Amino acid sequence: MMKNRQVTLVSRPNGVPELSDFQIVDQNPPKVRDGQILVEVHYVSVDPYLRGLMRGVRTYADPIGIGQVVPGRAVGAVLESRHAGYKVGDVVTGTFGWQDYAISDGHDTHKVDVSLAPMSACLGILGMPGMTAYFGLLEVGRPKPGESVFVSAAAGAVGAAVCQIARIQGCRVAGSAGSPEKIDYLLSDLALDAAFNYRQTDDYAAKLREICPDGIDLYFDNVGGPLTDAVFPWLNQGARVVVCGQIEQYNKDEAVGPRLLWYLIVKRARAEGFLVFDFANRYSEGIRQMAQWIGEGKLKYRETITDGLENAPKAFIGLFHGENIGKQLVRVRQI
Amino acid sequence: MMKNRQVTLVSRPNGVPELSDFQIVDQNPPKVRDGQILVEVHYVSVDPYLRGLMRGVRTYADPIGIGQVVPGRAVGAVLESRHAGYKVGDVVTGTFGWQDYAISDGHDTHKVDVSLAPMSACLGILGMPGMTAYFGLLEVGRPKPGESVFVSAAAGAVGAAVCQIARIQGCRVAGSAGSPEKIDYLLSDLALDAAFNYRQTDDYAAKLREICPDGIDLYFDNVGGPLTDAVFPWLNQGARVVVCGQIEQYNKDEAVGPRLLWYLIVKRARAEGFLVFDFANRYSEGIRQMAQWIGEGKLKYRETITDGLENAPKAFIGLFHGENIGKQLVRVRQI
Repeated sequence: MMKNRQVTLVSRPNGVPELSDFQIVDQNPPKVRDGQILVEVHYVSVDPYLRGLMRGVRTYADPIGIGQVVPGRAVGAVLESRHAGYKVGDVVTGTFGWQDYAISDGHDTHKVDVSLAPMSACLGILGMPGMTAYFGLLEVGRPKPGESVFVSAAAGAVGAAVCQIARIQGCRVAGSAGSPEKIDYLLSDLALDAAFNYRQTDDYAAKLREICPDGIDLYFDNVGGPLTDAVFPWLNQGARVVVCGQIEQYNKDEAVGPRLLWYLIVKRARAEGFLVFDFANRYSEGIRQMAQWIGEGKLKYRETITDGLENAPKAFIGLFHGENIGKQLVRVRQI
Repeated sequence: MMKNRQVTLVSRPNGVPELSDFQIVDQNPPKVRDGQILVEVHYVSVDPYLRGLMRGVRTYADPIGIGQVVPGRAVGAVLESRHAGYKVGDVVTGTFGWQDYAISDGHDTHKVDVSLAPMSACLGILGMPGMTAYFGLLEVGRPKPGESVFVSAAAGAVGAAVCQIARIQGCRVAGSAGSPEKIDYLLSDLALDAAFNYRQTDDYAAKLREICPDGIDLYFDNVGGPLTDAVFPWLNQGARVVVCGQIEQYNKDEAVGPRLLWYLIVKRARAEGFLVFDFANRYSEGIRQMAQWIGEGKLKYRETITDGLENAPKAFIGLFHGENIGKQLVRVRQI
């Protein structure tokens, strides 16, 4: 008899999440009713935004309840179908949560075209992180050829895609990341114009002047905190700051720093936040374009895959220590 | 023999400017050469932005040099002309500085149409503050009818114009100011929907919830600091923050506060700074529209006039204590 392992939240993290904030419980697999499908989950996604949902506060979404399965995005195959739109074997993605098996009534569930890329790509380059990069850079940041673009967390799932899309747009691209291996990845594999390891310096301002000597026209911010503080004075006139993530402060209850709005006046600059969900009706356009760039060899992607559902909390915690290059995924079991 | 009094900067202010940072010197009046005009200055403008130029640091403009005449905007009459474009008696405005008489070669000098309003208006409602309100609100903020607009320093020269233009656009308008007299002005004269005296509370967040019960769609920020900190969590989805001024921090070398960028993500909001100079090629449009609204009784303005050029430093310092309602001007001498 198959078991359904579920990774649940048992306490709200205080600072960086700890393994003890999670618990794995064994349940009987869910039963399928009319209009539903049973999905065997192959990969679950661990993403920084989930940290925000672990606070007990409503932001743009409801917080995760104590005892609830962590509602991560996932991809898998239909094992049983009582829904006219799906048949057994269909590969589907949705917010199935960190568990072996999930029930879906089709809401927020999409079939995955595995002719474009392996199924795991729908959680990364062709999924939420890829769409975040695509719409965030192009629609919010609106880069122009020749502009100087700086990307924080440039070796992450979103950042690496942003860097490459910016290059496709004809921009000069620089980025920051947190290990020599990542810097090598950015410079050698992704052909960035410049990059620096933020763990090897205290003087971000000096480093930015070095790697972006002509200032910054577009800052794609995945990080926030002291690095962002150093970017603002180095923005060019008419600059745009795409506020995508603020991982530096997700584990802090109260984040304090220098006041930055003044720089927006001096530089006639714009800082704009977005949520990728707001572009949901254009995902098919984004996926088509990204898949085409992958096919043409213009867009590369990497995945860091951790094996075993039981290791999802560890992989999630690793995000805050910068352990992943590209998209961090968990392969639920040997397939 | 007429004297030319000049108000010069003799030391860089440390915190709020003091009278001792300024000195009045008597010079002989300047001589007019070919291609120049001599202007008898009637009103000089004191504006918060001048504080920024008193730091020894280049921002969007060169800093004021020690010993230099404070380069305030001014309006006056042509006393002598050796410039084909001007005749004696023409009323002109420009950056003539805090002095009795100024020379201009026509650069950055504009004739004032005194049929629209008294000449002093060209330094306020039909001048830089008015244009700041007009283009900042309409072009940067882009208000939509029915939206909730909140304006800080609402009784100032820029704020009062913003409030009224927002009402003309069909918005609900609330504001903050620093005295009972100003609150009365906002509610009675300008017919704002709500207003609060920020000096009478420590809990800005609670006040904002009270006076903007449906949140804030557009925040026109003249102030920065703790009030702005309280606004960000109360922004609505898709909100815009027009970053116009940050007077709260102009007298601080290092301003620190809560990190605000996260709210831009959660609310899919935009914070954008601007300088009115960037709209210079559209001033005639703005002046025409504002003058029309004044004529129709839809747009009111007030001026706080201090007499005597020698009192310009005092009037300037008063800005940081919120002593003015509407545009603060200095009438150079009895006319």
